[in-house]
Amino acid sequence: MRAVVARSGIDALLVTDLINVRYLTGFTGSNAALLLVASDSEDNAADSTPADARTQFCTDGRYTTQSAQQVPDLPRLIKRPCDVALLRRCPEGLIGFEARSVSVADHMTLLTAANGEPRDIELVPMLDLVEGLRAVKDAGEVDALQRACAVADRALEDLIEAGGIRPGRTERQVGLELDQRMRELGASDPSFETIAAAGANSAIPHHRPTDTVLATGDFVKLDFGATVDGYHSDMTRTFVLGSPADWQREIYQLVESAQAAGRAACVIGATGDQIDAASRGVITDAGFGPQFSHGLGHGIGLQIHEAPSLARDSPSIMVPDMCVTVEPGVYLPGRGGVRIEDSGVIRADGYHVLTQTSKEFRVLA
Amino acid sequence: MRAVVARSGIDALLVTDLINVRYLTGFTGSNAALLLVASDSEDNAADSTPADARTQFCTDGRYTTQSAQQVPDLPRLIKRPCDVALLRRCPEGLIGFEARSVSVADHMTLLTAANGEPRDIELVPMLDLVEGLRAVKDAGEVDALQRACAVADRALEDLIEAGGIRPGRTERQVGLELDQRMRELGASDPSFETIAAAGANSAIPHHRPTDTVLATGDFVKLDFGATVDGYHSDMTRTFVLGSPADWQREIYQLVESAQAAGRAACVIGATGDQIDAASRGVITDAGFGPQFSHGLGHGIGLQIHEAPSLARDSPSIMVPDMCVTVEPGVYLPGRGGVRIEDSGVIRADGYHVLTQTSKEFRVLA
Repeated sequence: MRAVVARSGIDALLVTDLINVRYLTGFTGSNAALLLVASDSEDNAADSTPADARTQFCTDGRYTTQSAQQVPDLPRLIKRPCDVALLRRCPEGLIGFEARSVSVADHMTLLTAANGEPRDIELVPMLDLVEGLRAVKDAGEVDALQRACAVADRALEDLIEAGGIRPGRTERQVGLELDQRMRELGASDPSFETIAAAGANSAIPHHRPTDTVLATGDFVKLDFGATVDGYHSDMTRTFVLGSPADWQREIYQLVESAQAAGRAACVIGATGDQIDAASRGVITDAGFGPQFSHGLGHGIGLQIHEAPSLARDSPSIMVPDMCVTVEPGVYLPGRGGVRIEDSGVIRADGYHVLTQTSKEFRVLA
Repeated sequence: MRAVVARSGIDALLVTDLINVRYLTGFTGSNAALLLVASDSEDNAADSTPADARTQFCTDGRYTTQSAQQVPDLPRLIKRPCDVALLRRCPEGLIGFEARSVSVADHMTLLTAANGEPRDIELVPMLDLVEGLRAVKDAGEVDALQRACAVADRALEDLIEAGGIRPGRTERQVGLELDQRMRELGASDPSFETIAAAGANSAIPHHRPTDTVLATGDFVKLDFGATVDGYHSDMTRTFVLGSPADWQREIYQLVESAQAAGRAACVIGATGDQIDAASRGVITDAGFGPQFSHGLGHGIGLQIHEAPSLARDSPSIMVPDMCVTVEPGVYLPGRGGVRIEDSGVIRADGYHVLTQTSKEFRVLA
């Protein structure tokens, strides 16, 4: 990250986005900031620069013990507000700050602090510097995502085996049981508000569970994930209750093919736009283009939505170890919809699926 | 709110904080903004001004149906990005924006849009305009808080009756069961990450549940709440397992007295600082001042922490229908700690407790 700071033409970066602070330091508390000084030599930095002595971490008194455990390798400052405390210790020159997460009010406070300094400090708004690094996962991160996916896989399989997805239950009951099973299996939380959508509700892409009762003949769409060590899995599976109708088999198979095409297009060098087009084309060719009303996928990691984006006009270029979802859908208002989604990692030999639950057409109850 | 806008000397306010948008419109989606034009006459506005025709709500295509249901009384615009779309429709003059929640990056986008307008628009950073209104609850809000408190009360009582708080269980098991019971009783979520702290861990004010096993002689401190219709309850109770030691009775009674003093001090016209002092004085007089290491309480509502603050140096003045927590604690590192917390509403005749669970010294198992 210090090499990225150097390449960006700034002398230091004030990291205040808490997810970025966690990514760079491992700190999980609710208040902290990090000052990163540009590395002197980009070449030396490319592999792994040791923390410069001027790199500093700051949190408040609630986290004295926790920060000593989680951030043992950096000089730690205990002071509020963290951003101002670090600004007072930064070198002279151009100091970048994270323009997407610093509010106008906090920026005014920083400006006042900078103007009160005897040293010559200029605040420079920066975009997505840490987020760019975060898009490419290291082995530990892929491992955490794999474990998050395994929790979701296991919770769903257990739910199905226990007969938890059957006519007579409500969407809310199904969603709550899935969440509870993920927690029991070690998830700190669901990755996001679990979507459990039955019948006509399955045609609503982001439906929130209601007291709607599951009935024979329904599509049941479950979109959910587990958070493990801060990393988020994301998976969608769609089932049919009882005996499926022909139209249900047809759109399922269409989405299944589109999802396979999307996975196959996840190769190094492809753009997000190209991958989206490869999957979308299958659906458009079948005449259901307007019924696939969202992007194909997104990066996953410490956030449930992060870079890169797989969507129309997305210029993101795939590089090894990006982790993304592939999730096409077809939604027929008033009737029902199908979405099939995996989380996976892009490698030299293609897309490795991390969510292991079968994607075959499956009839329950 | 339109009268507040007029009194603030701006011509309109661009509301982009999603919780403030929800408060003013009832909309619960994840992307929206609201443009409020200053009322023409403050007098007419004091009671209830009808929405001006120039008041506009904006969200994106995912929420077309939902916004029609939740915001039927306002002109609705479906467009991205919402803030820019509304800026293009605002009147000439000084346009306030919410400086605490608008990022520097979004502000730059707004500035560019304003500069591209043929009309004369100046963006003005504003602080806490909506938050000031939110501190005072209407009857519907107090009712929601009451229901959120009732869910927490019931979940805890059921947990105790089922023998859920006993030696041999882990903090994590107790916390998860409490959360699950709140969800089954109608909470959309816990209000925050439930604190379940046993033995020496009870001396850590904001302990996260671990695999620590509850043992006879432990203090067990539970700090938790339920979210119902978006409103957050907050309650702490501390129990003893098995036979209590004298020091446990002593600090419990001390905290109980301090909490009663804090509640008694919650009268109209008092400042947050005075209420904190009334409760803190009881603990300080007993020689445990340094062991009460946090503020006395905070407002609750659509956020778990909101205005007013009950803490040292808090200038907030209590007015009828503010809803606040009262939560003194005494923490003895390595031994254990006690916190007792209610949520309640301030009325002309004093503090009305909304969390009904008994605060008597209680020995479990």
